[in-house]
Amino acid sequence: MIGIGLVGFGYWGPNLARNFQSLPQYQLAAICEMNPERAALASQNYPTAAVTTDYAAMLDMDGIDAIVIATPVSTHFELTRAALLAGKDVLVEKPFTRTSAEARELIDLAETRGRIIAVDHTFLYTGAVQTIKRLVEAGELGKIVYIDSVRINLGLFQSDVNVIYDLAPHDLSITQHLLERDPVAVQAVGASHAGNDIENIAYLHLEYEDNLIAHFHVNWLSPVKVRHFLIGGTSKMIVYDDMQPSEKVKVYDKGIVIKEGDVESLYRVYVDYRTGDMVAPKLPFGEALRVEAEHFAECVETRCRPISDGHMGLSVVRVLEAAQRSIKHHGDRVELSSI
Amino acid sequence: MIGIGLVGFGYWGPNLARNFQSLPQYQLAAICEMNPERAALASQNYPTAAVTTDYAAMLDMDGIDAIVIATPVSTHFELTRAALLAGKDVLVEKPFTRTSAEARELIDLAETRGRIIAVDHTFLYTGAVQTIKRLVEAGELGKIVYIDSVRINLGLFQSDVNVIYDLAPHDLSITQHLLERDPVAVQAVGASHAGNDIENIAYLHLEYEDNLIAHFHVNWLSPVKVRHFLIGGTSKMIVYDDMQPSEKVKVYDKGIVIKEGDVESLYRVYVDYRTGDMVAPKLPFGEALRVEAEHFAECVETRCRPISDGHMGLSVVRVLEAAQRSIKHHGDRVELSSI
Amino acid sequence: MIGIGLVGFGYWGPNLARNFQSLPQYQLAAICEMNPERAALASQNYPTAAVTTDYAAMLDMDGIDAIVIATPVSTHFELTRAALLAGKDVLVEKPFTRTSAEARELIDLAETRGRIIAVDHTFLYTGAVQTIKRLVEAGELGKIVYIDSVRINLGLFQSDVNVIYDLAPHDLSITQHLLERDPVAVQAVGASHAGNDIENIAYLHLEYEDNLIAHFHVNWLSPVKVRHFLIGGTSKMIVYDDMQPSEKVKVYDKGIVIKEGDVESLYRVYVDYRTGDMVAPKLPFGEALRVEAEHFAECVETRCRPISDGHMGLSVVRVLEAAQRSIKHHGDRVELSSI
Amino acid sequence: MIGIGLVGFGYWGPNLARNFQSLPQYQLAAICEMNPERAALASQNYPTAAVTTDYAAMLDMDGIDAIVIATPVSTHFELTRAALLAGKDVLVEKPFTRTSAEARELIDLAETRGRIIAVDHTFLYTGAVQTIKRLVEAGELGKIVYIDSVRINLGLFQSDVNVIYDLAPHDLSITQHLLERDPVAVQAVGASHAGNDIENIAYLHLEYEDNLIAHFHVNWLSPVKVRHFLIGGTSKMIVYDDMQPSEKVKVYDKGIVIKEGDVESLYRVYVDYRTGDMVAPKLPFGEALRVEAEHFAECVETRCRPISDGHMGLSVVRVLEAAQRSIKHHGDRVELSSI
Repeated sequence: MIGIGLVGFGYWGPNLARNFQSLPQYQLAAICEMNPERAALASQNYPTAAVTTDYAAMLDMDGIDAIVIATPVSTHFELTRAALLAGKDVLVEKPFTRTSAEARELIDLAETRGRIIAVDHTFLYTGAVQTIKRLVEAGELGKIVYIDSVRINLGLFQSDVNVIYDLAPHDLSITQHLLERDPVAVQAVGASHAGNDIENIAYLHLEYEDNLIAHFHVNWLSPVKVRHFLIGGTSKMIVYDDMQPSEKVKVYDKGIVIKEGDVESLYRVYVDYRTGDMVAPKLPFGEALRVEAEHFAECVETRCRPISDGHMGLSVVRVLEAAQRSIKHHGDRVELSSI
Repeated sequence: MIGIGLVGFGYWGPNLARNFQSLPQYQLAAICEMNPERAALASQNYPTAAVTTDYAAMLDMDGIDAIVIATPVSTHFELTRAALLAGKDVLVEKPFTRTSAEARELIDLAETRGRIIAVDHTFLYTGAVQTIKRLVEAGELGKIVYIDSVRINLGLFQSDVNVIYDLAPHDLSITQHLLERDPVAVQAVGASHAGNDIENIAYLHLEYEDNLIAHFHVNWLSPVKVRHFLIGGTSKMIVYDDMQPSEKVKVYDKGIVIKEGDVESLYRVYVDYRTGDMVAPKLPFGEALRVEAEHFAECVETRCRPISDGHMGLSVVRVLEAAQRSIKHHGDRVELSSI
Repeated sequence: MIGIGLVGFGYWGPNLARNFQSLPQYQLAAICEMNPERAALASQNYPTAAVTTDYAAMLDMDGIDAIVIATPVSTHFELTRAALLAGKDVLVEKPFTRTSAEARELIDLAETRGRIIAVDHTFLYTGAVQTIKRLVEAGELGKIVYIDSVRINLGLFQSDVNVIYDLAPHDLSITQHLLERDPVAVQAVGASHAGNDIENIAYLHLEYEDNLIAHFHVNWLSPVKVRHFLIGGTSKMIVYDDMQPSEKVKVYDKGIVIKEGDVESLYRVYVDYRTGDMVAPKLPFGEALRVEAEHFAECVETRCRPISDGHMGLSVVRVLEAAQRSIKHHGDRVELSSI
Repeated sequence: MIGIGLVGFGYWGPNLARNFQSLPQYQLAAICEMNPERAALASQNYPTAAVTTDYAAMLDMDGIDAIVIATPVSTHFELTRAALLAGKDVLVEKPFTRTSAEARELIDLAETRGRIIAVDHTFLYTGAVQTIKRLVEAGELGKIVYIDSVRINLGLFQSDVNVIYDLAPHDLSITQHLLERDPVAVQAVGASHAGNDIENIAYLHLEYEDNLIAHFHVNWLSPVKVRHFLIGGTSKMIVYDDMQPSEKVKVYDKGIVIKEGDVESLYRVYVDYRTGDMVAPKLPFGEALRVEAEHFAECVETRCRPISDGHMGLSVVRVLEAAQRSIKHHGDRVELSSI
């Protein structure tokens, strides 16, 4: 059984706690939380876990094998570093770190010490993304020519990171998982409406080799919640609408047909479209976080590399860093090789 | 009664013909169409209209007061110019022209000759946009801070203009109508997948003074049709979803509240959100094109300036031209004052 | 070319006129309409058709081969009878007649005179129903065990017939078309809220042999428009949602599995469900009324029996009559053999 | 603090346990569960609760003030009776009992012993139903003329009760809560497709005094999950769609207008409709079960009658019993006074 020390019982921590508590592979041994009210709640719900405000003490406790970090981004580097140095495996919230330099240092440290880093890119463990990944690998979509995602809602404006750091990691990790390659360049534009220079609406544009583009709209100031992920392929196209209670993934047998044409007409069309059936594949069932926790347990026990390991985390952080640089320069094109 | 000469009985022409035929203010006197098959169809449906292939002859016919132009963009300038020179009022398809220079020349010509130019920005005549305009004018939204539109579908790839010229005029005319000011700068990115250097997917980003932004996603290669127009205001926010059979416009009493905060906590939030009721106002009923045709009749009879006149058409074309320049330079920021 | 005399230019008549005008197989020769305002509109839109208030005169005109009847139900019998006696083929609005006795008399008359009766059950000519019919015939659904339809909206309360006569003919004709058999018994309940004893909300329940049931909710007093048609089969199930702009027909690979079970537990379940992919088949494109008009032309030219002939019309009327009798007796079960 | 003994850790029990565990008013003292696998899960998640298979022993334990019953319907009477006799307050799953006789006996027993019975009609504690109740009480809807609910999905076929006993209690409790009166008569039709005479699809029709009707479609064999509750009033109408992630309750300012009319025309309409804005009121936030648990704690502490007390439970059971009698007699009308 893997002893877990959880740090952070704020917004996401309770979801992690619930899953680690209910899985027989784990023992939720301790919870570190500074806020007295949240700490009391942790005690109420998990009476058998030690609740503390002292992170260093938790690292020293007996029976703690892995540290799960659910604190603000700005603390990830220090908390992860300390955990690795204490010989613990780590599962850390997304985004991995604030900068690619921090991410690289942690990856090196984990490799030196033989420790596992998993980044909590939860969406990779959903039935939806698993199914899309399978379809992409099977070549069902043909060549992917564009990805477009809209991830907007009325969200809590954060005070340490902008909306890109908050929401885009979901799109970036899914995109990285599906494409298995980094973009060449990144552009980002946006605006801040809270008077604090922290963007609450932003658009990211990623250029890949071979005429592929990806575009993400992330927004904390939308009256409606939208989770609409679109993948255009030369054979088929996918709409992944995470707000649907069922049939979240729809595969459209639609596309274009380039026609040979020399008609001398103003109405001539060289490109026609074809349209066929739509299929919504049955998706694997289960809470993504539970699937992820089971995967992490397996990695810890067999010393394997997680699907969302430090390198995946780094790929995401590199794009975030490039986007941050671009958005501060009116959307200038930032080459990823510069990060 | 206003005698109408319609040129172009392709995709949109039949809708224009049907409305002009059924309104008592008009006499659909002639239809000019080069394609024999389409011309035969015109005769079948409108047996009392003269059907011809000779545009110059139609301009010379008795009883033609106004010319309605529903042909490809590249022909708009010449056809409109000839009509104005022949002393006709003109209703021309969107976009008005290919370049701002053409648009300016036609506006000058119409003013010199005392003729009316209306550009067929049909959406301005929908009950939805009329209602949104009324709400904006009444100050219901507070200050508008962003506009975002997604206008995507599997569309006929056109051979003379890209997707920006095809779809963005709708968003640009609505935005111009609501804001009554031009953007300061435009950026556009996109891609072409038909091997002809004509973009079939594009993103436009418009910067306005006073921290306002607008962003449009236009796309001919989407498996699903989306018409989702979002307006973020400091008091209220609007979602205009044109794919809904009813309740197309929803007004959300939602927004953010900037809080005074000095809490020394990692979880501190200086910005909170508030959320209230949503109202879907009753919309005026009626086909937009019919409303527009009635408005055009009134303008012709009273010699008034149409809501979507040449100046509105020019505003739209200027942004299109700036976007075109930007998209060919990887999304470089193009100031509108340079157009 | 088939000369058409249309009687009734009220709500539905203009749709019929438009289709007959635009099809080369037809000549829209005359329109009979009593209301002067509607008659003027008919003249405006169809300047080449003779517009009259004299039905008998229209029957006598040269060049009239078929009569199309789009008048209130109470007039169908007399108008159809006169047309048949004058040697015309007839296309008549649904429902065919008010009573089964009337329907039988018209069928006999048409057979004696060698004339064609088509009843305008338009839905049978939609791509959706054609596709469902094909799937049912191919055995894709297994055995059909239930049909459920909700067809509700805020509708014009009619003064000569109740909501069952207005809306249920759609469900009844589709159901008859798919099942190709009559129900054994009918029950109907409902209520009238306009103080005129004409039900504006009603529920029909049809019993078929072999444990099959069908249930229809029809309603003129619903704030929302719903068109939701559900077919439960032992192999697959279909949802046909006519309010969707696309993917109107969805085929679910879902069902139940009867398990052998003798577990002595309070939680035991003998029946489990299975769930697979959902497919939304590509539907044939085109306006149903146009498809129907083309089919009627073919029947007139080749003297064939239409898909929605008098016998289909009679099947529908028999159920309406049984439902009417049931609803006036608090939902008593009325055997169809008594009609 | 109220000590809780929970019996049943099957499908719904874990939700109850989670809420009682997380509320400071309660101590989840014991869980009674016969199935070893489920009992082990209870121990894993609630290590501080005593887990037992002996219900009588749990009733005897120290520190148990109230019993929460989440077992199959057939056991409700005996378990509730034993708990009341042991001096405990009781929260019991819906439906309260199988028969009205059982319900009446338990109500009498509770009154004699001064104990509280709450029936877990969870929907009454949702923000949606609370809001609808408030609107109805404020007279916003005018006079309610009909209620229609569709509650269908692919559900686990139960072996001790039919779909009416499983799903209709939700609709019946909401309806009872809103109307505060019993129906006069009940009719039910349905079918069983699992070969066990337990209906998996059913329609209930309730007649009330004053021309009000209610109709419920409940179904375990639907490929799609629908939760669509419609309330027609003379002033306004409500759609409560529980499948929507937000804006679950929509209030339509729509209705009919009875017109004075003596026009001698076939197209005359005596009833017209009016249509205004739609409002989706902001709903109170929070998990219904948590709200209910807090309400139960308050009732236990202040010895007040719960909103969903035994009498509410009895009202629901009476209709279930009448429906059961009707469905076994082909939908015969069963007067509620006979139950």
